Amino acid sequence: MRTVRVALVGFGNVGQALADLLDQRADVLYQQYHLDVSVTGIATARHGTIIAPDGVDLARTVAAIEDDPAATLPGALTGAIAIPAFIATVPADIIVELSPLAPESGQPAIRHCETALRNGKHVVTANKGPVAYGYRRLRDLALSQHRQFRFESAVMDGAPIFALVEKALPATKVRGFRGVVNSTSNLVLTMMTAGQTLAEAVAEAQRRGVAEADPSYDLDGWDATVKVCALMNALMDADVRPADIERTGIGDITADDLRAATAAGTAIKLVAEAWEARDGTPHGRVVPRALPLADPLATLAGTSNMLILRTDTMGDLAIGEYDGGTPQTAYGVLADILHIADSE
Amino acid sequence: MRTVRVALVGFGNVGQALADLLDQRADVLYQQYHLDVSVTGIATARHGTIIAPDGVDLARTVAAIEDDPAATLPGALTGAIAIPAFIATVPADIIVELSPLAPESGQPAIRHCETALRNGKHVVTANKGPVAYGYRRLRDLALSQHRQFRFESAVMDGAPIFALVEKALPATKVRGFRGVVNSTSNLVLTMMTAGQTLAEAVAEAQRRGVAEADPSYDLDGWDATVKVCALMNALMDADVRPADIERTGIGDITADDLRAATAAGTAIKLVAEAWEARDGTPHGRVVPRALPLADPLATLAGTSNMLILRTDTMGDLAIGEYDGGTPQTAYGVLADILHIADSE
Repeated sequence: MRTVRVALVGFGNVGQALADLLDQRADVLYQQYHLDVSVTGIATARHGTIIAPDGVDLARTVAAIEDDPAATLPGALTGAIAIPAFIATVPADIIVELSPLAPESGQPAIRHCETALRNGKHVVTANKGPVAYGYRRLRDLALSQHRQFRFESAVMDGAPIFALVEKALPATKVRGFRGVVNSTSNLVLTMMTAGQTLAEAVAEAQRRGVAEADPSYDLDGWDATVKVCALMNALMDADVRPADIERTGIGDITADDLRAATAAGTAIKLVAEAWEARDGTPHGRVVPRALPLADPLATLAGTSNMLILRTDTMGDLAIGEYDGGTPQTAYGVLADILHIADSE
Repeated sequence: MRTVRVALVGFGNVGQALADLLDQRADVLYQQYHLDVSVTGIATARHGTIIAPDGVDLARTVAAIEDDPAATLPGALTGAIAIPAFIATVPADIIVELSPLAPESGQPAIRHCETALRNGKHVVTANKGPVAYGYRRLRDLALSQHRQFRFESAVMDGAPIFALVEKALPATKVRGFRGVVNSTSNLVLTMMTAGQTLAEAVAEAQRRGVAEADPSYDLDGWDATVKVCALMNALMDADVRPADIERTGIGDITADDLRAATAAGTAIKLVAEAWEARDGTPHGRVVPRALPLADPLATLAGTSNMLILRTDTMGDLAIGEYDGGTPQTAYGVLADILHIADSE
């Protein structure tokens, strides 16, 4: 039996779901992989920081936060410790980066990832920011440090997009893709097609916990744009940033537009797409499109997501997710941890 | 640079496409994997048998068969050699099993796989028969011989279904699936929905090279049934045979049925499905179903295939293929060869 020591930066919904998952799956991990995943530290802005070389009691820690969302983590250090110092010194093999994302810069997640790699630790992040804004630098740093930089949960919750290409499609080049990758905008379009106004649809999406308090990041296409960058950089060896992507959101789409689309036998979707120009230059775009109903993207309702990869071996290959949410995001992080453990 | 020696049993469409692919991708395999895949033997019933320890000239061999479909392979042995003797003695690390399938028994493919494993050779097959009829035996034999038994191309051409579960979904249990996995029946239903008769649709599918001369194996649901077994055995740890699967084909579906389905806002598809009963027993079924258009399977047209896995980590996860055919089947075989090379 091997122990893999993991430290978490951030302990919000995904961190807590990961803690639950590690607790629930401990037996499976032991039986299938002879592996003990031990959480040796948790650093948060709101709940303090724990360092526990013998492993944090996850059930107790999650329960404390559930009982009181403002609680300090049980056993938290009394003195303050800065996150970079935590990352550098916590006795861990893998840093799991789950800090809140600044979508316009990818920080502080990128700095966290860099600090971890420079200190000889693997990195798993559920943040798309580091992949959209810092992929090449972090990939090269990881290579030079003989460590891994993994980010399955950056796009489509934990759906295994990056692992599919890396591990299940050898000798394959991804030449482009098209997909529906933003749940809020898709849910809003689905509800507007069913007759609700934009405001009603947004309110309902917020009530269901899909849309943020400020939904503009999703509705303006920014979330999809950052994901397009992450996908292009990691799958197409591109070196693009969100500002390089053509972007149109769904804010200008009216009930009349949706009625007309339905009458024409189409469905309007916010499509995230990328392709290679004739000279091989990669291009990306986020744009609402009226898709014929025979298009696999057209029937995606609510929070369903799908990505269709254009490959040079399998032609078009789709991967779709229907129940995406925090548990899937947490699973993607666990999968990355297991991929790292498997390669050690 | 490493050399992996591969011997082919069978050299029909898939074998020739694999030879083309190995020729075209030699540079990529060398650059990405420092790998030389050398075909050291080809055994066929119609074209004779080659054994070439230094590697067969693939371009010349494919060209000879293209020029004359009845040709003897250039450099073929003058004396006859039985296939089992070829498998046992050919200087190869991997036997690629591509012999014509007897769908009611999985033979002679199962015997070929066994002979290879017993002689310390890895096995890659594009045949679903060995997975449907002999999975557990072959898996256990491979384990005891420290060799691999791989079969990505058994279902949905080369779409990476088995590799997805094995390599990209760690610590995940597949609890069931539903899919459209038979291209002929789907193409026939698509054309009948567009107004053709069953006979016209079958003739058109044959003209396009999708349906066999005798289409009953596809239309009666047998092909999908054998695939359901392969998927259940390999993904759900089941131990079922085609006779264990409930099976209804599309032969009784009339133009009226399809019109009624369309009028009701549904599409009739031949659905391949499996699930666990309450006590954990796996069950499988192939049956035409009228699916609401919002079902991702409902919009699959023509030869498109999709499989939706029910998992205990990611919920429902879909993988879809839109351009399936011989090149994709050959790629699945290549991917299996590379997976074996990667683990050596």
